[in-house]
Amino acid sequence: MSRPKNDTFLRALLRQPTPYTPIWIMRQAGRYLPEYNQTRARAGSFLDLCKSPDLATEVTLQPLARFPLDAAILFSDILTIPDAMGLGLYFAEGEGPRFERPLREEWEIRDLDVPDPTTHLRYVLDAVAQIRRALDNEVPLIGFSGSPFTLACYMIEGRGKTDFAETKRMLYARPDLLHRILEVNARAVIDYLNAQIEAGAQAVMVFDTWGGILSHAAYHEFSLRYMQQIMQGIARSRDGELVPRIVFTKGGGLWLESMADIGVDALGLDWTVDIGAARRRVGERVALQGNLDPSVLFASPEVVRTEAGKILESFGKGAGHVFNLGHGVSQFTPPEHVAMLVDAVHELSRPLHAA
Amino acid sequence: MSRPKNDTFLRALLRQPTPYTPIWIMRQAGRYLPEYNQTRARAGSFLDLCKSPDLATEVTLQPLARFPLDAAILFSDILTIPDAMGLGLYFAEGEGPRFERPLREEWEIRDLDVPDPTTHLRYVLDAVAQIRRALDNEVPLIGFSGSPFTLACYMIEGRGKTDFAETKRMLYARPDLLHRILEVNARAVIDYLNAQIEAGAQAVMVFDTWGGILSHAAYHEFSLRYMQQIMQGIARSRDGELVPRIVFTKGGGLWLESMADIGVDALGLDWTVDIGAARRRVGERVALQGNLDPSVLFASPEVVRTEAGKILESFGKGAGHVFNLGHGVSQFTPPEHVAMLVDAVHELSRPLHAA
Repeated sequence: MSRPKNDTFLRALLRQPTPYTPIWIMRQAGRYLPEYNQTRARAGSFLDLCKSPDLATEVTLQPLARFPLDAAILFSDILTIPDAMGLGLYFAEGEGPRFERPLREEWEIRDLDVPDPTTHLRYVLDAVAQIRRALDNEVPLIGFSGSPFTLACYMIEGRGKTDFAETKRMLYARPDLLHRILEVNARAVIDYLNAQIEAGAQAVMVFDTWGGILSHAAYHEFSLRYMQQIMQGIARSRDGELVPRIVFTKGGGLWLESMADIGVDALGLDWTVDIGAARRRVGERVALQGNLDPSVLFASPEVVRTEAGKILESFGKGAGHVFNLGHGVSQFTPPEHVAMLVDAVHELSRPLHAA
Repeated sequence: MSRPKNDTFLRALLRQPTPYTPIWIMRQAGRYLPEYNQTRARAGSFLDLCKSPDLATEVTLQPLARFPLDAAILFSDILTIPDAMGLGLYFAEGEGPRFERPLREEWEIRDLDVPDPTTHLRYVLDAVAQIRRALDNEVPLIGFSGSPFTLACYMIEGRGKTDFAETKRMLYARPDLLHRILEVNARAVIDYLNAQIEAGAQAVMVFDTWGGILSHAAYHEFSLRYMQQIMQGIARSRDGELVPRIVFTKGGGLWLESMADIGVDALGLDWTVDIGAARRRVGERVALQGNLDPSVLFASPEVVRTEAGKILESFGKGAGHVFNLGHGVSQFTPPEHVAMLVDAVHELSRPLHAA
């Protein structure tokens, strides 16, 4: 397992010089690509697609065949861990993820156990290994997990919500129970990410999709604290190569200073944050990943190029920026606009990296 | 029209000393109150309730009969303006607001016109006047409007969304059209709030419920700029009394510095912001209103008291804090918990205002 030929992504995460700003795109293997939809139709359900290492490898590589992206990301779901805990993940057609057996009773929470990734999540590790072989060291592979708090939201509610009222209710009325879930989740994420690193993931990202619904104090106590445990518990390197870590709390722009302190290499930013201001706040400590509004990709290629240029300019000269969207790419995005974005970022960023 | 007997709310907005921290609650006249549900059932629909000055007065006063709140807020909807523009506001049972005729065509946007509040929104002005008479100068009455951008979101999409993709699409693909809508909306809000002030509103608040979905740059260009126009266009005082202005952008915690600059007296804060940190950022320029997570009210009265105390302590000593939730009160809130909150804020804040 040697260094990938294109290591701009890994270098940027470690704030090392690169000739241009690397880019990958959250949900880059997704429904905006016709070839993805074809593979998914062959697979049956979304979950069947995740659980087949062959098909997960196929879709992981699809965006890389189209666009000169600087990283691949494991095709999987953020909710594989609670599924492995026995909660029964499924996807209702046209809706988001759901659990057959959400946590309703105190004894269910007491009985929660950390799943062994080498058995219950074997399919993920097999996919990581197979994708690494298929990538042939062209670009690095990102492994990932949902954050303990984000997993808990779905485990408690049984599905996505806008307010996660049951989770909040537990947080204020029975914080001991929520802490119990989060402790188990944190240990599960540590084991899971370590297993992904062992299987070949060259960087890891924790998606804290719902941490942004919390108050300032609750975010620190119920989300960030457990992500810090994860950073302490996962391998720093493998085969002598550092494995950079990224944490992304959607809606977490107010908390970047404390996020930068938990042992991460990079912070993901949603599009509400001015990336230049974020860099002034934390850019001496961590790299930044982001943060184009995915809606920009609905506009013309000219607008895409202009808006991408604004973000590059806002970050400014020098190392430590990985370009991305501020959220997953929409299924209604024209693939040509993604092509334009990738080219624009590569081209427009070169002067910012000149010696 | 003399000064209300309890003017703590008005004084706090102007950062003048008060004996305790005043409190009111967003959506304080709402579905968590059985008496509200009874009046609403009598009214027929939610919109019938808004459009009847008698019934709007009745429900506006209901929470004040229960709790020693320091302000009343006009019972109305944020979407009355587009309704008056002819878009046909209605409420599907159990769902949010919708428009029968959202803006679909360019000519519809070109044809948009500022409604005359004294005709099309007469029912609101009548309600303001009637509520003022019913309040008998006990506490001040807050008038309000949706922000130009928030109105535009609903006018374009026809209903609430989580991402407002059509609005974003227009923002990036046809910014000229969105600006046209926003200009009309800003003029409409100015006329509407001036008419409310003329009818007796003693403070005004602009609810920018959806500004927080925008990028940093887009927020300033498409939401804040038009709220600034409103602040420039509305009356500063009536009958020799200042009419304080509050602006609340949900999810706007990153932008407090620029929000404080548009001619407002106070900024509303959602619960993601640490109010003490917000005060250090802008507290020399504006008062702050907020910011308890409404979910705290699901917990026990003891937790409600503790969490309210934390916010009061975080703001700290001295003038310039109006206590509120960080969002509207949930319909599932036990009214006794609201009673506990109001009492706790009044009691726990007194030492913070001691000379």
